[in-house]
Amino acid sequence: MMRALVFDGKLRFETDHAIPVPQADEALLRIRRAGICNTDLELMAGYKSFSGILGHEFVAVVEQGPEGLIGRRVVGEINVACNQCDYCARDIPSQCRNRTTVGIDGYPGAFADFLRLPSQNLHLIPDTIADDAAVFVEPLAAALQVIEAVHVSPRDRVIVLGAGKLGMLVAQVIALTGAELLVVVRREKQSMLLRRWGIRAVSRDELNPNQAQVVVDCTGQAEGFATALELIEPRGTIVLKSTFHGLPQVDMTRVAVNEIRVIGSRCGPFVAALRLLEAGLIDVEVLVEARYRFDDALSAVEYAAQKGMLKVLLDF
Amino acid sequence: MMRALVFDGKLRFETDHAIPVPQADEALLRIRRAGICNTDLELMAGYKSFSGILGHEFVAVVEQGPEGLIGRRVVGEINVACNQCDYCARDIPSQCRNRTTVGIDGYPGAFADFLRLPSQNLHLIPDTIADDAAVFVEPLAAALQVIEAVHVSPRDRVIVLGAGKLGMLVAQVIALTGAELLVVVRREKQSMLLRRWGIRAVSRDELNPNQAQVVVDCTGQAEGFATALELIEPRGTIVLKSTFHGLPQVDMTRVAVNEIRVIGSRCGPFVAALRLLEAGLIDVEVLVEARYRFDDALSAVEYAAQKGMLKVLLDF
Repeated sequence: MMRALVFDGKLRFETDHAIPVPQADEALLRIRRAGICNTDLELMAGYKSFSGILGHEFVAVVEQGPEGLIGRRVVGEINVACNQCDYCARDIPSQCRNRTTVGIDGYPGAFADFLRLPSQNLHLIPDTIADDAAVFVEPLAAALQVIEAVHVSPRDRVIVLGAGKLGMLVAQVIALTGAELLVVVRREKQSMLLRRWGIRAVSRDELNPNQAQVVVDCTGQAEGFATALELIEPRGTIVLKSTFHGLPQVDMTRVAVNEIRVIGSRCGPFVAALRLLEAGLIDVEVLVEARYRFDDALSAVEYAAQKGMLKVLLDF
Repeated sequence: MMRALVFDGKLRFETDHAIPVPQADEALLRIRRAGICNTDLELMAGYKSFSGILGHEFVAVVEQGPEGLIGRRVVGEINVACNQCDYCARDIPSQCRNRTTVGIDGYPGAFADFLRLPSQNLHLIPDTIADDAAVFVEPLAAALQVIEAVHVSPRDRVIVLGAGKLGMLVAQVIALTGAELLVVVRREKQSMLLRRWGIRAVSRDELNPNQAQVVVDCTGQAEGFATALELIEPRGTIVLKSTFHGLPQVDMTRVAVNEIRVIGSRCGPFVAALRLLEAGLIDVEVLVEARYRFDDALSAVEYAAQKGMLKVLLDF
């Protein structure tokens, strides 16, 4: 039996969940630490009609699996791919046509004592990266997918909308390109952190329309795209990181007339995220807002759901 | 005095409009032939709150202007640029920050006996291109902007949504790339034309979701984008040619999760359009649905506004 945080229309903390049994090419992981993401909160709001164990940001130790991995600390990619479709053949498992996604879509999540996962999804964590930092590998990889999706030139002016859990990582990644970076924030706490990193925090009202070459929407809200459309210059690129429940009204004619490029962006490269963390180029532990024992997971979720909250961790 | 088709909330045919007086760097053009575009119909439906002389597809003869042009047949680019902003400096006058647009936005249109236009906007028409074909240079250039915006590979499967005035040109342009091309049509007339060109016409129901690398929305309707989102494969590119009055609801989360690229596309290269017409690679005269004397412009507009109508020409 194991503990698990389950959502099936309502959220429940269970202590009698069955421990998963790994298949031949899978490992059994014992979760050490996990992070609460906005997607978890969106799933609880109805996004994707998810039912099951939540959670997809985690650090674990391998209990069963390939010999070289047993007892080692790992992070895990969250797309469980079929290895047979055209996307898998092109080595894009994050877009596998038959995928399930850990704690998001059709696959049990990491808010539990144990998780089974294909061994091919695992990445060893270098000793120099602490658990508290390693739990950020998944969201940092997602932030890196922005610069996989669009070439950010050091001559560009880039605006990041939203300085939440993901926006703070995207901002740090963009800052590394040398581009002029402005982050639209609403809270003084975020401004202070950004200033510490030498990143300019602004309010929406300070910005002129049509002046940015790249705008990254990390607001997680339907209104983010409308703001991005106002700030982006003609022929500029909007990167969409926001996923949410609902269908906003969008001025598609403005996209056509101003020849805007809109690029969706999802999961990113774990290996690059580990490299940047190991090099000390991304400051993540300062983003930890609170830490709860897993037994108090319900309180942790409640705390994380407050506006403007950064990362809430669960200790197992 | 001259004749002019004016829209200011309602459509009027005037016979006592003042003949425009060209400035130093402008030419005075006598219109020979003009075409009615969907944008004209959208403007009459309230798009951009336009007021003035309509029309932006035309063939003309230069009456006053640079010596080498006088008496010659020309087509004219429709963006009247400032020559001073950052876009003009980058040689992208179609996105000039201070532009007006002939017959669309802040500049009198071509549905009149005379039009003044900056000489830099003019292109000579080779003798081998008849007036009836030359009137298609502007929309054919707009169709070519699709392959300026996105690289269509001969390995791609491309779907064109909408086989109207613009869609029929976009389809012919895409066919030249060697890509697998499917055009979604609603009417037998369009199907027959496409088959004549060796292009496959299909109905929406015949198509599987998530299977096209490129989808071009030429529907001119809000629903076009939703259909494009269903048909495009993950990481595929949707090109938006549609402009219309109104704000559709759009599933932006699908754009993010499937990492779709959406690219707006507006005016295109006249020089390339003239090359393709001169080479006989695009069949345009067959797209002429009807021809009206300019005196009957009101009837022509009424006729052009019917569903499924291809190009209606005005003879001056």
